Amino acid sequence: MNLVKQKTDQAISILKELNIDIWLTYVRKTSEIHDPSLYFLMEDSWLTWQTVLIITKTGKKIVICGRYDVPNLEKMGVYDTIIGYDESIKTDLLKILDEIDPSSIAINYSIDNVAADGLTHGMWLRLNKFLEGTPYIERLISSEKLLAALRGRKIGLEIDKIKKAVEISENGHKKVTEFVKLGMSEEDIEKMLLKFTKENSVTVSYPPLIHVGPTTSIGHGKASSDIKVKKGDLINVDYGVFYEGYASDLQRMNYVLREGEVIPPKEVVRAFETVVKAITTSAEKLKPGMHGWEIDKIARDIVVKAGYKEFKHALGHQIGRNVHDSGCLLGPKWEKYGNSPLMLVEENQAFTLELHVYVENHGYASIEEDVLVTKDGCDFLSNRQLELSLLLL
Amino acid sequence: MNLVKQKTDQAISILKELNIDIWLTYVRKTSEIHDPSLYFLMEDSWLTWQTVLIITKTGKKIVICGRYDVPNLEKMGVYDTIIGYDESIKTDLLKILDEIDPSSIAINYSIDNVAADGLTHGMWLRLNKFLEGTPYIERLISSEKLLAALRGRKIGLEIDKIKKAVEISENGHKKVTEFVKLGMSEEDIEKMLLKFTKENSVTVSYPPLIHVGPTTSIGHGKASSDIKVKKGDLINVDYGVFYEGYASDLQRMNYVLREGEVIPPKEVVRAFETVVKAITTSAEKLKPGMHGWEIDKIARDIVVKAGYKEFKHALGHQIGRNVHDSGCLLGPKWEKYGNSPLMLVEENQAFTLELHVYVENHGYASIEEDVLVTKDGCDFLSNRQLELSLLLL
Repeated sequence: MNLVKQKTDQAISILKELNIDIWLTYVRKTSEIHDPSLYFLMEDSWLTWQTVLIITKTGKKIVICGRYDVPNLEKMGVYDTIIGYDESIKTDLLKILDEIDPSSIAINYSIDNVAADGLTHGMWLRLNKFLEGTPYIERLISSEKLLAALRGRKIGLEIDKIKKAVEISENGHKKVTEFVKLGMSEEDIEKMLLKFTKENSVTVSYPPLIHVGPTTSIGHGKASSDIKVKKGDLINVDYGVFYEGYASDLQRMNYVLREGEVIPPKEVVRAFETVVKAITTSAEKLKPGMHGWEIDKIARDIVVKAGYKEFKHALGHQIGRNVHDSGCLLGPKWEKYGNSPLMLVEENQAFTLELHVYVENHGYASIEEDVLVTKDGCDFLSNRQLELSLLLL
Repeated sequence: MNLVKQKTDQAISILKELNIDIWLTYVRKTSEIHDPSLYFLMEDSWLTWQTVLIITKTGKKIVICGRYDVPNLEKMGVYDTIIGYDESIKTDLLKILDEIDPSSIAINYSIDNVAADGLTHGMWLRLNKFLEGTPYIERLISSEKLLAALRGRKIGLEIDKIKKAVEISENGHKKVTEFVKLGMSEEDIEKMLLKFTKENSVTVSYPPLIHVGPTTSIGHGKASSDIKVKKGDLINVDYGVFYEGYASDLQRMNYVLREGEVIPPKEVVRAFETVVKAITTSAEKLKPGMHGWEIDKIARDIVVKAGYKEFKHALGHQIGRNVHDSGCLLGPKWEKYGNSPLMLVEENQAFTLELHVYVENHGYASIEEDVLVTKDGCDFLSNRQLELSLLLL
């Protein structure tokens, strides 16, 4: 059975669990604005005019769409009712709502969960105009809980794709250690990885980030053509791919030995060990029922107690259809993260575990692993980096 | 000067013209939801956390973004003020608004114009929470007028890219006439065009649509592997590409001669001539100051008077950063088109002119051309199809 069929079936069971009557996704011109949950409702196709996709608690799958999109939706074979319209979606929409008479309608908007927030404000205003004078206007709720469950709880097909994405990006990281030479720039490494990505018939799940030595620009900065590999540098590579629409996200840490060095300097080793320890300790506690912020705090405390500056991002985000999948976040309770650190970890969610410290004169010390939450713990999807990769160039 | 610099400068002059103090675009996780106007504000880069991009009537360009996105924005060299934050965007946002004290704030939402409607409803609610108790909450207006002007009025660089996109898609259409053989399926033709697209290092601006003979599924339907070219068929191909982010959108019409035929049947010729006449007559009237619906009506009336069924779409949409660019539409006053047919045609807008009629036993008779509005008329960007392409297979 294909993914869309399986995920829409899963949506039906989540609607039952949450006791929500229908999930209604309202979109238009999906080549301009692509609702992040559309992946679970459609294959690649574009929707041109305003379209409503409805999944009901009782197991119905209904689409109301522009007349010219009907043939594609029919070919997909997921929806049992497909209604094409010419001039306005309103009449058919109200007719379908009257037939179902749902007491709760989960709509595609959310304050905190970007993946559940595909409804634009203009479309919200349109929808409210359509529903004026009907009882349904009072029955709209956010689809964020539904979407957090649907995106978070990976089914077998999805886990397989993530595993494959992890495997390909691990090969890319390995290639870096073979490729890198003294005097190469951050940009040279980036280019090699983009070539590797293409050769493997995948796409990057985000622009690769290359951090070479102490002068690199930390964060989402573009690779520099001026910053070049020299002895004594830490080389951090942050690289992941999309395999059939599912993302990996991994960081590996390399150290370029200096003349006569056989082991890295003490401060580099201590940084590496601190990062590894923070990942190990937080992974040991990661299991269903924990709050996102509790896991983040474990790693954050280890870093701060070791005397390093606190990392200014979340310890772990979910991976899936997006490299930063929404819903429960292993992050601190900062305003920008909304309610996501307050959510509970669930079985079959896939998370990154990532953090960094900075080592004066050497650079950015950071590792990122990918894990899958199991019934009572978590499994690493990546082959963990437990030893610092030493480069003799 | 690069495109983003030129378009943000153009935005400043439009703000002056419309007497709007600032244009404020509020986005987050742009890999999940990509605001359609972001193209004019940023190069390829992704924005991870909540970000506000502000262009002021007085010529200031300001960004407030997550700390890790700062280096990329600095490298872009477009914004004179770049503020990085860690935990919440609110403080910096209110500070900047207090400094400017704008009396009108054009925000990225719109009921009718999808290209100006990038703000999700969740983000709208967040923004309103931030602005609670400030005077700014009453000063928010839709950015649709600003965006319609900015997207519609193409600058030289943009026109050049559209022309190149048109040229490449014309070559693709020519290739179809050389490639097609009896017994080939719609899917075969589609595959050839996708290969051609890749070979030309561009991407399709929409999935190519192939209509072969009388049994084809009309509209945005996927090409069929079962519908095969036979004598007496009309073959319509709808194919356009993105060249450096700018779209073309063209349809060409071919007829497969039957045994002994040297000219197509009368009904095919009449259909072809009706479509050509509708395009010619509407193009003659297309100029700045006309309403979109007036141009559509010219073509629609010709088709209906000739005794054909009315086409159930707009005569012409704009092309640009999207193949269906928003703003003024040459379309009928149907609810789904909102206010766009009521808008005025302006100089330097690029439109398609497209319509179809159906010919019993032969198929879909449709042509689509691309035009650029000039000071007092319009120029064809495509080499018009004025003769039916006859295939002797």
